[in-house]
Amino acid sequence: MKIAEIAPPWFAVPPVRYGGIEWVVALLADGLADRGHDTTLFASGGSITKAKLISVFEDPPGGAHIGEAFYDVTHASRAYRDADSFDLIHDHSGIIGPAIGAHVRTPVVHTLHGPFTDEAKKIYTTLSGQIWYVAISEAQRAFCPDLSYAGTVHNGIDLSRYPFRDEKEDFLLFLGRINREKGPELAVDVAHRTGRKLVMAVKMAEQFEQDYWREVVEPRLDGSEEIIGEITVDEKADLLARAAAVLFPIQWPEPFGLVMTEAMASGTPVISFANGAAPEVIKDGETGFLVGSLDEMCAAVERTGTIKAEACRAHVEAHFSADAMVEGYLKAFDRVLSRSV
Amino acid sequence: MKIAEIAPPWFAVPPVRYGGIEWVVALLADGLADRGHDTTLFASGGSITKAKLISVFEDPPGGAHIGEAFYDVTHASRAYRDADSFDLIHDHSGIIGPAIGAHVRTPVVHTLHGPFTDEAKKIYTTLSGQIWYVAISEAQRAFCPDLSYAGTVHNGIDLSRYPFRDEKEDFLLFLGRINREKGPELAVDVAHRTGRKLVMAVKMAEQFEQDYWREVVEPRLDGSEEIIGEITVDEKADLLARAAAVLFPIQWPEPFGLVMTEAMASGTPVISFANGAAPEVIKDGETGFLVGSLDEMCAAVERTGTIKAEACRAHVEAHFSADAMVEGYLKAFDRVLSRSV
Repeated sequence: MKIAEIAPPWFAVPPVRYGGIEWVVALLADGLADRGHDTTLFASGGSITKAKLISVFEDPPGGAHIGEAFYDVTHASRAYRDADSFDLIHDHSGIIGPAIGAHVRTPVVHTLHGPFTDEAKKIYTTLSGQIWYVAISEAQRAFCPDLSYAGTVHNGIDLSRYPFRDEKEDFLLFLGRINREKGPELAVDVAHRTGRKLVMAVKMAEQFEQDYWREVVEPRLDGSEEIIGEITVDEKADLLARAAAVLFPIQWPEPFGLVMTEAMASGTPVISFANGAAPEVIKDGETGFLVGSLDEMCAAVERTGTIKAEACRAHVEAHFSADAMVEGYLKAFDRVLSRSV
Repeated sequence: MKIAEIAPPWFAVPPVRYGGIEWVVALLADGLADRGHDTTLFASGGSITKAKLISVFEDPPGGAHIGEAFYDVTHASRAYRDADSFDLIHDHSGIIGPAIGAHVRTPVVHTLHGPFTDEAKKIYTTLSGQIWYVAISEAQRAFCPDLSYAGTVHNGIDLSRYPFRDEKEDFLLFLGRINREKGPELAVDVAHRTGRKLVMAVKMAEQFEQDYWREVVEPRLDGSEEIIGEITVDEKADLLARAAAVLFPIQWPEPFGLVMTEAMASGTPVISFANGAAPEVIKDGETGFLVGSLDEMCAAVERTGTIKAEACRAHVEAHFSADAMVEGYLKAFDRVLSRSV
């Protein structure tokens, strides 16, 4: 198959730092090329891939320019100019790429990487029937079920980046951005009530995140916690591998939640509110726990010893590896090309 | 002919306040409908037109949202969804509309309403050959001559909005935004050196415009000037009609310069630096003067009595009326449809 993968233009793929979408694109482009598909990756300069790379921007514009139409339009227009030379185009860029893709003859598949805001619903509904969508979880898809879906494909991760470790240390881990949706203050409460040490590796790039930390999280701290700022990929993998459990007190229906798969890949159970994609990602009682309240989360902490590290790793290998994701997309592509959706 | 006119989504057309592009679109849609063409106008709610109106946004988003891709994508996607039902699509929206239009079967004409920034050049070059361009002046076109042009069509105005007046008062008029490119401080200098009263109707919406006024213009004022803030369309027409001459000390190659045609329509000569489109708009010595220096501008002020108000009006009627513009576009459309460009 001749396949085009269109990354967002902002960062190189794979990303040097944070970048969930960029990792998905990088793994997919490599995985498709590995399987013998003639794969072209449209991504900014500095990208490393087994696919043929075409870059409009030699220097990735960077996060500060996200939202400026010039970059999306130029990048996507270059990619779609070649539309006729592909059997299928898989677009991960924002909303401008899909809007252009709606008018090419080649089938276009767009992965819905973000949540369904009112604006996203309006745009994707407008383009429905003209392009195919892939949801990254059934939970996400349920928020806008009537689009022209090619399927649901969970995000996969590069397992080699998350070394497996059977022996755990005694701390609980919270890892992520600091805002109401992520529930960091609930992780603090759970640690205090269960008498466990909490390590928090936090990201606070935005002012409102810093405000949330100062106003909501910091007043709850009692000095027993270890607070770490932004960390490297290796530091993150090390923390995940050593933790007794990862707390994921998610307060909104997050479309996926990559950190859950990263934790389980390291052999570490995840304790999450049964929100968003969590029930699709965690096998309750086998790779972690799905809870409905703070009391239940505390009770789950006491039961983490019953979770087998091997079961966590095996679950990710089977369902959230790069291979599983590539196979999932190939099935979705087949459905589109055979019009059996 | 079945023609679609796509306005930018931000304001209703015609605009209640400022909005050069919106006036062009409004006059064109009416003019095409008047000539019996089956015309559809894609524009936000509140628009008044003789064409069939299709609005994605019942309430125009307004200027504060300009640049947010959501609005352009939703608006343009709705318009291009119907692409096959038109003989020709004429797109005035920013860069997202044309990028989509590059992939529809129906010929798309895009009017270049702005200057050729580096970004604009890159995008329009990328899309060249996939859509047709109309420049609004030869001066503008010269900055990027190798695009797939359907022609050059000067902007037209609704002459009925600019009452003709033969008897002038003694003041010089400067009308416009306050920034280096518009040269407002030069208008002050010319008035002082020629001993004439200056009326300035100024627009300072942005901080940098207010800074420019305070730092560059204000220190030059000697109290003889009359300074007016933003004015209504009627107030503007009245000022233009009464002025002895309009000073247009333009310091950059502005692609058009609507105020020149508005002044001449009122029977008022324009004295402009020979920059940008000014040499195409002003008939030197007949409807105003083209100058190359401050000295020349002062000298021209002394000669305004030699300009006939009727000649100014007649020049606009012949070349910059709504009718002239509609005929210009129809010729460009014919060239596209007969592939004779």
